[in-house]
Amino acid sequence: MLLDAAREAAAEAVGCRPDELSFTASGTQAVHAGIAGALAGRRRAGRHLIVSAVEHSSVLHSAEIHEREGGSVTRVSVDRSGTVDPAAYAEALLPDTALACLQSANHEVGTEQPVGEVAGVCRAAGVPLLVDAAQSLGWGPVGGDWSLLTASAHKWGGPSGVGLLAVRKGVRFAAQGPVDERESGRAPGFENLPAIVAAAASLRAVRAEAAQEAARLRELTERIRARVPELVPDVEVVGDPERRVPGIVTFSCLYVDGEALLHELDRAGFSVSSGSSCTSSTLTPSHVLKAMGVLSEGNVRVSLPLGTPEEDVTRFLDVLPGAVASVREKLGAPAARVVVQEDALVVDALGKRCPIPVIELAKVIGDVPIGGTVRVLSDDEAARLDIPAWCEMRGQEYVGEEPADRGTAYLVRRVS
Amino acid sequence: MLLDAAREAAAEAVGCRPDELSFTASGTQAVHAGIAGALAGRRRAGRHLIVSAVEHSSVLHSAEIHEREGGSVTRVSVDRSGTVDPAAYAEALLPDTALACLQSANHEVGTEQPVGEVAGVCRAAGVPLLVDAAQSLGWGPVGGDWSLLTASAHKWGGPSGVGLLAVRKGVRFAAQGPVDERESGRAPGFENLPAIVAAAASLRAVRAEAAQEAARLRELTERIRARVPELVPDVEVVGDPERRVPGIVTFSCLYVDGEALLHELDRAGFSVSSGSSCTSSTLTPSHVLKAMGVLSEGNVRVSLPLGTPEEDVTRFLDVLPGAVASVREKLGAPAARVVVQEDALVVDALGKRCPIPVIELAKVIGDVPIGGTVRVLSDDEAARLDIPAWCEMRGQEYVGEEPADRGTAYLVRRVS
Repeated sequence: MLLDAAREAAAEAVGCRPDELSFTASGTQAVHAGIAGALAGRRRAGRHLIVSAVEHSSVLHSAEIHEREGGSVTRVSVDRSGTVDPAAYAEALLPDTALACLQSANHEVGTEQPVGEVAGVCRAAGVPLLVDAAQSLGWGPVGGDWSLLTASAHKWGGPSGVGLLAVRKGVRFAAQGPVDERESGRAPGFENLPAIVAAAASLRAVRAEAAQEAARLRELTERIRARVPELVPDVEVVGDPERRVPGIVTFSCLYVDGEALLHELDRAGFSVSSGSSCTSSTLTPSHVLKAMGVLSEGNVRVSLPLGTPEEDVTRFLDVLPGAVASVREKLGAPAARVVVQEDALVVDALGKRCPIPVIELAKVIGDVPIGGTVRVLSDDEAARLDIPAWCEMRGQEYVGEEPADRGTAYLVRRVS
Repeated sequence: MLLDAAREAAAEAVGCRPDELSFTASGTQAVHAGIAGALAGRRRAGRHLIVSAVEHSSVLHSAEIHEREGGSVTRVSVDRSGTVDPAAYAEALLPDTALACLQSANHEVGTEQPVGEVAGVCRAAGVPLLVDAAQSLGWGPVGGDWSLLTASAHKWGGPSGVGLLAVRKGVRFAAQGPVDERESGRAPGFENLPAIVAAAASLRAVRAEAAQEAARLRELTERIRARVPELVPDVEVVGDPERRVPGIVTFSCLYVDGEALLHELDRAGFSVSSGSSCTSSTLTPSHVLKAMGVLSEGNVRVSLPLGTPEEDVTRFLDVLPGAVASVREKLGAPAARVVVQEDALVVDALGKRCPIPVIELAKVIGDVPIGGTVRVLSDDEAARLDIPAWCEMRGQEYVGEEPADRGTAYLVRRVS
């Protein structure tokens, strides 16, 4: 009875029938089960999958597995704000497309996606659309004619250990892996009943205050978006300025080591995230920032949980300029070898990690005449993203990259 | 840090290294991931899987999937106590055996399996053994040279939503499905940290009192095992009398509808389980009772949680005889048509569910002379198990079954 009541409450919040909704052990497992089941159910239609380039890693991992098993995948690109173009989904649809996936909003930069339009495009082609609604479900139901939807309770302030998978009646679906009779055969194992009940109750509670709290958090994130570039030089605020979920704001700071900045902010009592390469175990920058083509160095993602007091934001804005300045100062000493070679200045930043290559480029650009070239040698994957991003921010020309004896040479022409 | 500490505590309780242990979202998911990963890791050795016939459904579902995908499966049978013979595992091992699975103890009847001996047999053949330790891990580590081990926190009194998967170093393992960097790539999705911390803490707490509490619960279950046949006529207590985990006791009552008995006991405040066909949605009796060849009708499984007071057991034994008598009385009216046909009495129990076929057989057996035959027509799957079991209990001869115009004819010869 508790499970039925939780399912009814959650289904109402999602905007589906209770028998279309299964509880899973996490949002990630909802995504994995949803994509695998929809692809298998549509096997006869074909094995082509469409995802956006900025999906959550759970969607991208599912796409990688699908490719490894012989399927094909189109990754739809985004613009500098992180938004997909519905026309790009229309173009990506092929006769053998089994499934398309699109997030309702991006988890790193907060940009909302045009889900309704993409759902319409997919519906016209007879292709189901799976919407990863993890970032937005707490704020309201996902509009548009979607076929499958996934979400995660801890994202709306509910407990860990509960995900949602909605599969509309009529959508072909064949659950993969061992299943049992639970959750319509879509999520095996005994249901985590206490957590499921708490998840449904918290979703209802969050929704009751969503409109008011959204307005309040929007005002706070807008303040951060506006004030950070005024308080800190050489900052790029990323994500769509208008079409965004409340409570997430992301910016990147030139000449800053993301990990060092996180530590500075942590000492001041602020726990933020980063998509910088130097903060991840893989040493590659966030795939989201990469797909957007924006700066990744010194990247900071601030998430404001429900009920965040205004004073916290004020104090964050007080602390940030000093934290950035302190990190920049530590990185100020020359760390790369600079040589003049034929007609170009060569910055040898081999073996140096982000943000050193960009810092050294910025230091020497004034040393070449206008029209002259700086060649940055780097073996850090982040340089491929951050050197072009720096050029765009600084109004210099990014000429391109070419292979070098070691690493890659990035060519920048001084134009101002 | 919390996750590391929980992993260390749980690994110590399991008897493995912390880096061999992953937390999953449930015991079922640990089993599914463990079997799929071990089979894939040993793909070169072959595609043969060995399981016992009385494993948990999560193991059997994994075996079914493996068969559907082209693998082969041997299901090792058990004796009437529910125990496997290590020699049967030795016989089942083939040159292409990739993996063997065996539970540490059975979840329905409490029988402990000879895991150490089976592990030795498997080790000698170079085949990894996966032990499903869900029933026993709270009581102590699993001995023997196992390769993989799974467990479930709620089984030791911990929270829902946490399973354990241990994979010994050196065991070939290739995680299946989409994975991420969490839990050694064996359990994707953000860890359910609060539940994991609670799981590890509760395992430590349970273990601290395990020896004392095991002795106490053993005494209580032994009392139930001894007293029930004295208090209730026509009862079969099942499971090994000696080699058993504390806290589980199972018996079957002839001429009783399992579902009706559960309702009677529920009204008296006792929540018990049943492996009778009439209590399951599939209308087939428990695969465990079936594999043991014991009576399934009127089956009752009593689980005593940690700390169960002695008074509860006393009151249960007070209430049970009346509950069984009440159900038997309601079923007393003749429900099947009886005709004399040639040399046999025919009981037409077509369309009647367990326990009616056995009740009607018992009613008429006295009406045929010694040496005479009763032919029971039934289309209830449970009759295949319960009619032979009744013959064994009553000292009558079960001749065999043969197809009938509708359903199956079960032949019983009166010998006493």
